[in-house]
Amino acid sequence: MSSSYGENLKLTIFGQSHSPAIGMTLEGIPAGNHIDMDALRKFMTRRAPGNASWSTPRKEADLPEFLGGLVDDTTCGAPLAAIIRNTNTRSSDYEELKRIPRPGHADLTAQIKYGGFQDVSGGGHFSGRLTAPLCIAGGICRQLLAKEGISVMARVLSVGDICDEGELLAPLDDKLFPVVSDERGEKMKELIDTVRAEKDSIGGVIECVVTGLPAGIGDPMFDGMENRIAGIVFGIPAVKGIEFGAGFEAAKKRGSSNNDPYTVSGGKITARTNNAGGILGGITNGMPIVFRAAFKPTPSIALEQKSVDMKAGKEEILEIKGRHDPCIVVRAVPVVEAAASIACYDAMLGRKKEL
Amino acid sequence: MSSSYGENLKLTIFGQSHSPAIGMTLEGIPAGNHIDMDALRKFMTRRAPGNASWSTPRKEADLPEFLGGLVDDTTCGAPLAAIIRNTNTRSSDYEELKRIPRPGHADLTAQIKYGGFQDVSGGGHFSGRLTAPLCIAGGICRQLLAKEGISVMARVLSVGDICDEGELLAPLDDKLFPVVSDERGEKMKELIDTVRAEKDSIGGVIECVVTGLPAGIGDPMFDGMENRIAGIVFGIPAVKGIEFGAGFEAAKKRGSSNNDPYTVSGGKITARTNNAGGILGGITNGMPIVFRAAFKPTPSIALEQKSVDMKAGKEEILEIKGRHDPCIVVRAVPVVEAAASIACYDAMLGRKKEL
Amino acid sequence: MSSSYGENLKLTIFGQSHSPAIGMTLEGIPAGNHIDMDALRKFMTRRAPGNASWSTPRKEADLPEFLGGLVDDTTCGAPLAAIIRNTNTRSSDYEELKRIPRPGHADLTAQIKYGGFQDVSGGGHFSGRLTAPLCIAGGICRQLLAKEGISVMARVLSVGDICDEGELLAPLDDKLFPVVSDERGEKMKELIDTVRAEKDSIGGVIECVVTGLPAGIGDPMFDGMENRIAGIVFGIPAVKGIEFGAGFEAAKKRGSSNNDPYTVSGGKITARTNNAGGILGGITNGMPIVFRAAFKPTPSIALEQKSVDMKAGKEEILEIKGRHDPCIVVRAVPVVEAAASIACYDAMLGRKKEL
Amino acid sequence: MSSSYGENLKLTIFGQSHSPAIGMTLEGIPAGNHIDMDALRKFMTRRAPGNASWSTPRKEADLPEFLGGLVDDTTCGAPLAAIIRNTNTRSSDYEELKRIPRPGHADLTAQIKYGGFQDVSGGGHFSGRLTAPLCIAGGICRQLLAKEGISVMARVLSVGDICDEGELLAPLDDKLFPVVSDERGEKMKELIDTVRAEKDSIGGVIECVVTGLPAGIGDPMFDGMENRIAGIVFGIPAVKGIEFGAGFEAAKKRGSSNNDPYTVSGGKITARTNNAGGILGGITNGMPIVFRAAFKPTPSIALEQKSVDMKAGKEEILEIKGRHDPCIVVRAVPVVEAAASIACYDAMLGRKKEL
Repeated sequence: MSSSYGENLKLTIFGQSHSPAIGMTLEGIPAGNHIDMDALRKFMTRRAPGNASWSTPRKEADLPEFLGGLVDDTTCGAPLAAIIRNTNTRSSDYEELKRIPRPGHADLTAQIKYGGFQDVSGGGHFSGRLTAPLCIAGGICRQLLAKEGISVMARVLSVGDICDEGELLAPLDDKLFPVVSDERGEKMKELIDTVRAEKDSIGGVIECVVTGLPAGIGDPMFDGMENRIAGIVFGIPAVKGIEFGAGFEAAKKRGSSNNDPYTVSGGKITARTNNAGGILGGITNGMPIVFRAAFKPTPSIALEQKSVDMKAGKEEILEIKGRHDPCIVVRAVPVVEAAASIACYDAMLGRKKEL
Repeated sequence: MSSSYGENLKLTIFGQSHSPAIGMTLEGIPAGNHIDMDALRKFMTRRAPGNASWSTPRKEADLPEFLGGLVDDTTCGAPLAAIIRNTNTRSSDYEELKRIPRPGHADLTAQIKYGGFQDVSGGGHFSGRLTAPLCIAGGICRQLLAKEGISVMARVLSVGDICDEGELLAPLDDKLFPVVSDERGEKMKELIDTVRAEKDSIGGVIECVVTGLPAGIGDPMFDGMENRIAGIVFGIPAVKGIEFGAGFEAAKKRGSSNNDPYTVSGGKITARTNNAGGILGGITNGMPIVFRAAFKPTPSIALEQKSVDMKAGKEEILEIKGRHDPCIVVRAVPVVEAAASIACYDAMLGRKKEL
Repeated sequence: MSSSYGENLKLTIFGQSHSPAIGMTLEGIPAGNHIDMDALRKFMTRRAPGNASWSTPRKEADLPEFLGGLVDDTTCGAPLAAIIRNTNTRSSDYEELKRIPRPGHADLTAQIKYGGFQDVSGGGHFSGRLTAPLCIAGGICRQLLAKEGISVMARVLSVGDICDEGELLAPLDDKLFPVVSDERGEKMKELIDTVRAEKDSIGGVIECVVTGLPAGIGDPMFDGMENRIAGIVFGIPAVKGIEFGAGFEAAKKRGSSNNDPYTVSGGKITARTNNAGGILGGITNGMPIVFRAAFKPTPSIALEQKSVDMKAGKEEILEIKGRHDPCIVVRAVPVVEAAASIACYDAMLGRKKEL
Repeated sequence: MSSSYGENLKLTIFGQSHSPAIGMTLEGIPAGNHIDMDALRKFMTRRAPGNASWSTPRKEADLPEFLGGLVDDTTCGAPLAAIIRNTNTRSSDYEELKRIPRPGHADLTAQIKYGGFQDVSGGGHFSGRLTAPLCIAGGICRQLLAKEGISVMARVLSVGDICDEGELLAPLDDKLFPVVSDERGEKMKELIDTVRAEKDSIGGVIECVVTGLPAGIGDPMFDGMENRIAGIVFGIPAVKGIEFGAGFEAAKKRGSSNNDPYTVSGGKITARTNNAGGILGGITNGMPIVFRAAFKPTPSIALEQKSVDMKAGKEEILEIKGRHDPCIVVRAVPVVEAAASIACYDAMLGRKKEL
């Protein structure tokens, strides 16, 4: 199986890049929760293409139509179902991909797994476009978490070698280029422009912070918050790594400097540092959850690449047509927020299961 | 929930550090597979404590007793069930942990989640000891994969700042200190000795390679090989990060250098490089799966630490008694192999689901 | 949770009676299976209302639009997604149901469970209309099973006290009133006409037979074929009982007459009788699966009924407006076939999980 | 898969009739619940063999040993794990069953499914003995439900044609032969004695009533209370049918007599009758849940039976040695209570999942 996630929620993502529509179903949102549709649309606009020079110029509305689960924009207990119509129809431009797979894409692996029956148009079910329905589900969860005082925020931490500066303390929803230091953001944009001019692409890292989560959320072992978050974040195309708190840096540290000492602040037990990224034994400790996801560079580049002709069984030069994001990381920021929101909301629902 | 994993397999881990026993149940192994018990015991010995200076001196056999699922050591289709008796009984030494939580441990989070009813003895269900039953399940899966020509191998890639050298090309089952370069291994051991002498601990990174997996294994989106492997590897205590292929390095690269060009070799399509770590779109491409897991330093250190008295609501100095692994990474190598084996075998079972 | 089913398939049903659309997603159908859309539409027409005097006169097309999962009507490995637009908009006629619950309906239980936020229009998510998407999924599975030589067929076994005669040996797809004995069917229709004239409704039993299933399908204990079939058949509104093979009659029998003796026929082991209904230990034995589902009479009747005013906390007489099926059993025949097809196809997928 | 059940709980049953042990793991019981071990043992004794003339004379203690999940008999949040040692070792007496399958047993279906690798001794994983670990889990859930004022009680409703009389209003834990009318019970016992003397067996029906469940428990569609209960009750060997409330009788009734009219009693909305068996739309309505399960006669009988020699491919007369329950229904009463308790407790846990 593939396209379902969740323990207390049950999310299913469906559709292909060029199928009649893409969409999602989401079971488990308790009845009586009002969805702010304006806020949801605003959230989704953040990942929509065509907003700026660093993203693909294709302009799409990408706004959801709800088919079920709501009465007057309020959840009624039935599964939520929403779709986004695809305006591009399936084209024959992509048939070639069954013959010559694009390096770094799922063309070859899908060809083998589905015996050539996969939908190749626009990447099919593997397209980054499928993150739009993820943002429907995640945008809703993010709203509901916000009502509980829980903020889910992300930023571009780095593009190539250029890193953001400063700490992420508040959501950057209003920034077109979501970094803490706009100065560093300018450098990143310059790099992206350079890379695009060179018909290439560039990777980057997104950092996500969740504040306000109560301590005691999540479960030991395979349902820890790390497992839950990784389980959905790796569902975002191009993610190749994830780390929590000090992450890979922790592997270089000593216990005496990596352990977060406890203290009492305002009558509340808290930690002086947050190398744990808010999670110990899979369970939240009341500190912010902090994680970083590594995105590889967009595999679609205009430069010539070496591939093979699968039918002829020989090497062939591939030139990819069309326009693509030279750096997916910027548009992926709300997608990471969406994924984290779903994981956290799902875990929050779990804490009430007791008699 | 917490302690179950799998799509085609269903693994449950149970027990606490000082409960009568720890164990596992494993459903889904097809009937008719013979288990090599000697090989399994040998595999499990690799994670057993007390083998060398860098691990805790507590000596335990930790060998499994099978209660169900086998006839003459051959799977019969019923769930496998195996236990390991705990020889240490629950002691009162640990009651103090309910008052003063150890930094870096799950003491505080478990206390909050379970309302003080958690088993504190020896870390309870959060103990690294629970990786022993994981190794029962994983050792079995590793054997069954080997029959298919699939090798699951891991090594200590780094301890602190000291890195191994060379490529991991074959299993290191026979090495007490599983590194490719024994010279680098000596440096690591020295560092571990130093750290222990200083009553401290040190983190490290484990690299795991899976060779021989056919292309086309795994699923898109939430059931990709990355999600599946991360979902179980984060179940190993102390893991704070995971990356596949180029991982976090990919985030610094350009598409032109990160995309793995295809070529034809011996009539077979293959990739010239393996930045993808063997996975594209969540699905194996026939190249080795390569991933690295970051382990934080053992939180139990003999040095004094700052904690709090939860009842009194004030800071308190904590001194942890007993002996602990100064570097968990060495013993965790077979555990990572076990986790990867379970994830890969589970995914392999899925590929046959077709009519 | 509620609206998802399956082990190797993952079916989700969404929508409410008067929401913009109803629909389903279905993961797990292997790629490369062509769907015969004409056959699917013909199958769905069998449950559509308005076909005859014994059903509700509301005429609806109820034909599915596929949004994802197909390329040229052939499965591509991505989840199938299909919707049926609701032409009736949500009306205010139903608000009254929040005050005065209809006996035999889910009005009261939904009111309590969802705190008054449930969608009451037309029964909301509890409407029999939701069996249409079940028929999309089931119609597909039934086609795919037919390719394997597996037939899923059902009939009206009884309406009230009037029983069909003869054995069900072939699908009755072409019969408007699916019984083996048309003569008995006439009697049933007369009874239904009488009941409707008296503003009342009547229950009945549907029998379903699955032929051609290989022996060895299904699992012991909680995933036996009985559990799997019951798990989905009780998802059809109005079902209050299910029995397999001799069923409740077996409870009156002796072992010597209930055990099905084995024999050899045409070189194949088979049973002389089929009291087991084709299932032993949860696993198919190669004989036809036979089960019967008891449907209660449609709770919506035009007769006055005693209910309560939930706000005023006192009894009140309820008169239900609108037209309803006096006997749901006829239209439910393809729904039972759909449910059985999904359960059997799901189990069939499971048998290939082996290395 | 097979041997796991639950949504908020996760129950796994393991072991075979003659494996070293049988047992269960149960995840999801909230921490801090004290288990009354005496009450649990007393509950389990009700299903133990050898208590009376109508059951198999083999005497076994069948009392559980807990390996994990408890501290001082109180749940600690870790999975519960308990085993019962098998004192009978695997014997060669059963090898014959691979050649000549017993009619009515799973011998043939297991042989086909597991390719001859199944454990045949004593029925292996298909043995009624596996209901003992079900009773460990169910006995615990029943205790915890009792704390909430919820009673789960069952009785022998019929043996062959002899039916109990009177309504089941209170648990019959203290009765060796759990019927409401002891006079009818004597008739049943006489019938069982007759049947045993004739080397035969007899089936029966068990009725189960759950009182005190709040309204609003359960979910629509595939997670209704009927689906949940049927999903576990069909896991009890020999069950071939289940019905709720009026059940199959409802199929003969008119809506006007089957609908349960509402009334107000003591300021509370209640129903005047209970044809719904306490469930509407899959959700409890506050009335008792009432269901009946049909048990086929024990397939093991001492009479000669017709079977086949699978290797020789010809008919053969089978004579089953050993002693077996002539009527399993009596000992199955606590098993049905256990199954219902698990289903209800699991559903109860679900109701708290809300923010």
